[in-house]
Amino acid sequence: MNPSGFLTLLTDFGWSDVYVGSMKGVIAQVNPALQVIDLTHQIPPQNIAAAQFNLASAYPYFPTGTVHVVVVDAGVGSSRRAIALELEAGFLVGPDNGLFTNFVQQGQVQRAVELTNSQYWRSASPSQTFHGRDIFAPVGAHLASGVAIIALGPEIDQADLVQLMQPPCTLTKTGASGSVQHIDRFGNVITNIPGELVQHKTWHVSVQHLTIPGQRTYSDVTQGSPLALVGSHGRVEIAVNGGDAHFQLRLDWDSPVQVIVDS
Amino acid sequence: MNPSGFLTLLTDFGWSDVYVGSMKGVIAQVNPALQVIDLTHQIPPQNIAAAQFNLASAYPYFPTGTVHVVVVDAGVGSSRRAIALELEAGFLVGPDNGLFTNFVQQGQVQRAVELTNSQYWRSASPSQTFHGRDIFAPVGAHLASGVAIIALGPEIDQADLVQLMQPPCTLTKTGASGSVQHIDRFGNVITNIPGELVQHKTWHVSVQHLTIPGQRTYSDVTQGSPLALVGSHGRVEIAVNGGDAHFQLRLDWDSPVQVIVDS
Amino acid sequence: MNPSGFLTLLTDFGWSDVYVGSMKGVIAQVNPALQVIDLTHQIPPQNIAAAQFNLASAYPYFPTGTVHVVVVDAGVGSSRRAIALELEAGFLVGPDNGLFTNFVQQGQVQRAVELTNSQYWRSASPSQTFHGRDIFAPVGAHLASGVAIIALGPEIDQADLVQLMQPPCTLTKTGASGSVQHIDRFGNVITNIPGELVQHKTWHVSVQHLTIPGQRTYSDVTQGSPLALVGSHGRVEIAVNGGDAHFQLRLDWDSPVQVIVDS
Repeated sequence: MNPSGFLTLLTDFGWSDVYVGSMKGVIAQVNPALQVIDLTHQIPPQNIAAAQFNLASAYPYFPTGTVHVVVVDAGVGSSRRAIALELEAGFLVGPDNGLFTNFVQQGQVQRAVELTNSQYWRSASPSQTFHGRDIFAPVGAHLASGVAIIALGPEIDQADLVQLMQPPCTLTKTGASGSVQHIDRFGNVITNIPGELVQHKTWHVSVQHLTIPGQRTYSDVTQGSPLALVGSHGRVEIAVNGGDAHFQLRLDWDSPVQVIVDS
Repeated sequence: MNPSGFLTLLTDFGWSDVYVGSMKGVIAQVNPALQVIDLTHQIPPQNIAAAQFNLASAYPYFPTGTVHVVVVDAGVGSSRRAIALELEAGFLVGPDNGLFTNFVQQGQVQRAVELTNSQYWRSASPSQTFHGRDIFAPVGAHLASGVAIIALGPEIDQADLVQLMQPPCTLTKTGASGSVQHIDRFGNVITNIPGELVQHKTWHVSVQHLTIPGQRTYSDVTQGSPLALVGSHGRVEIAVNGGDAHFQLRLDWDSPVQVIVDS
Repeated sequence: MNPSGFLTLLTDFGWSDVYVGSMKGVIAQVNPALQVIDLTHQIPPQNIAAAQFNLASAYPYFPTGTVHVVVVDAGVGSSRRAIALELEAGFLVGPDNGLFTNFVQQGQVQRAVELTNSQYWRSASPSQTFHGRDIFAPVGAHLASGVAIIALGPEIDQADLVQLMQPPCTLTKTGASGSVQHIDRFGNVITNIPGELVQHKTWHVSVQHLTIPGQRTYSDVTQGSPLALVGSHGRVEIAVNGGDAHFQLRLDWDSPVQVIVDS
């Protein structure tokens, strides 16, 4: 796979420090022709599950051969490994701490390497606290510039990659049982239940003491009313038309959600 | 008008999700040579008036032929139209919900089309909740790449475009009467009264129970004192030198403001 | 020194207005081939010391010939000078209000000019409140496009540049005495004590009533325990493994910190 010339950055660094800016400077030092796109830097500090969800949401919308550098890295400086993965349509670079679990479990990983070749780091003596700047950004930039992934370090066994426990989503007699996986800026409550289950069906959602009708889009209910729909992430989502479902319905991360297909 | 190769993005999506990043990925999929600039993504959710004010403020500072993609879109998935407008110096793309009212009312629109040609969308079956990613970003990218605006869909009548009620600014015997239209990050309070009215004049502002002297710049009054001036938006603005007028003077959005020119 | 084609922006403008976006538009008007990187726009309003710290942290990580435009500018519109400095590896552009004190005091400035040549401004009549858009961004863009620094205005004497009082860091019999200079998004507390002092030593930090062991990295102590280390800024830093030292240890900006090297 040829690189696209694009890198994305996904971190928990926020915008108030110069951590993200310094990573971009290092990328420009490696290759000024690369283009960098921010996915988000507002992952809650050290929240690997949130990073994984957001990466999976954005991944399909980038050119083939894009390098995604992901740094949510509480174990920086410890013995946790630094890795790069080759997928069918792109590359992932980051710490081996479960960030890429869903890609591994879906069988999308074609090759995995450990980043031991310090020739592609910023220097052979990286800081103990900021591998984003000193290892992941320069390695990502070299990968995006055409360096072969196997040049970055030895191949490693996918089965040895650290994996997160994923919250279960199970089929039931009448639909599916899952949980809230993400809440976005608008207060939309996104579950881990795939949208395909309810397509072209009549359905509703049961959450806490609420029964919420399945609809096509926000404006299918009156202003201020709750609805369930298949959102832009391709998952079942709970929203309030013109409102904030997180706040108004008092739903929170990890709340159990039932989808019921009305025969 | 030839495209400049630049697109801007103005949304209420915030930075905590990957919505903005996904739009940039889609633009890169259409044409990796385009350059994308963020205007702001912190428009308060669904606040069309705030989006309109910020777009008008930034518009003059971009190269001729820049495409401005604006997504503040409570009606996504409903029957509201998706549109593109050609102005003298640039293009606007977004939902037909009043976002572009001031450009329409000032007679700046040269051509308006409805975005019905799905060949320029991301796919012929867009999501029901994220036309920013599935329609507006790819259409904007095609427009910025040289596709003719009339290829995007049928021409529509400007008179049929949705328009916002604009807060009135009226001339009085002694000056003008308007209101607070925006409050910025520093607490500067920006009105809808044009700066030309007070240029080379002696003047003051009357707001609530306060009388505030018209000045040239912040440091014309002592640290901590209020002043009125013509701000960088070209409008009359109320500030506190080294302080926060919003907080200290208890002024808020929509507060009525009188400008009095001292004969 | 040839320009790298990169500009960085460091301001206190935040992301909620279109101030940053307008500066980028002006840069694109001057030269659409330039690349712009955001350092941060979340400097607390008018906090020159915070801007200086963040600029110094990021500066080494950019290509030689990069132009850094810094706008934290409470004195805009007053008689404060607008300046550009040439360093060995880059250029600095901003108001003459102490933002560049540390570069001056370390003898890094090779040439200083006052920005009086309005040919390189956006127009000869800039606004009185937004020199970022009307002077600093266009001047930075011209400098990054190859205009000679001496074309921007007359050379000025370095000794006349406004300088900030820097918080003292002094050597003691047993180590060093300094203070907290920055607190980052993770609550890491960064001092002005250089890391070289403690390299390859056994050491600890004394702050308020606490004694905190010097370590190599976060995971050298148990989860939730405090530690001191040399952070990515190259300074002594106080952290909590998996936690927030600012919050948990109640340390704040300017708190005095002692580093003690254990014989």
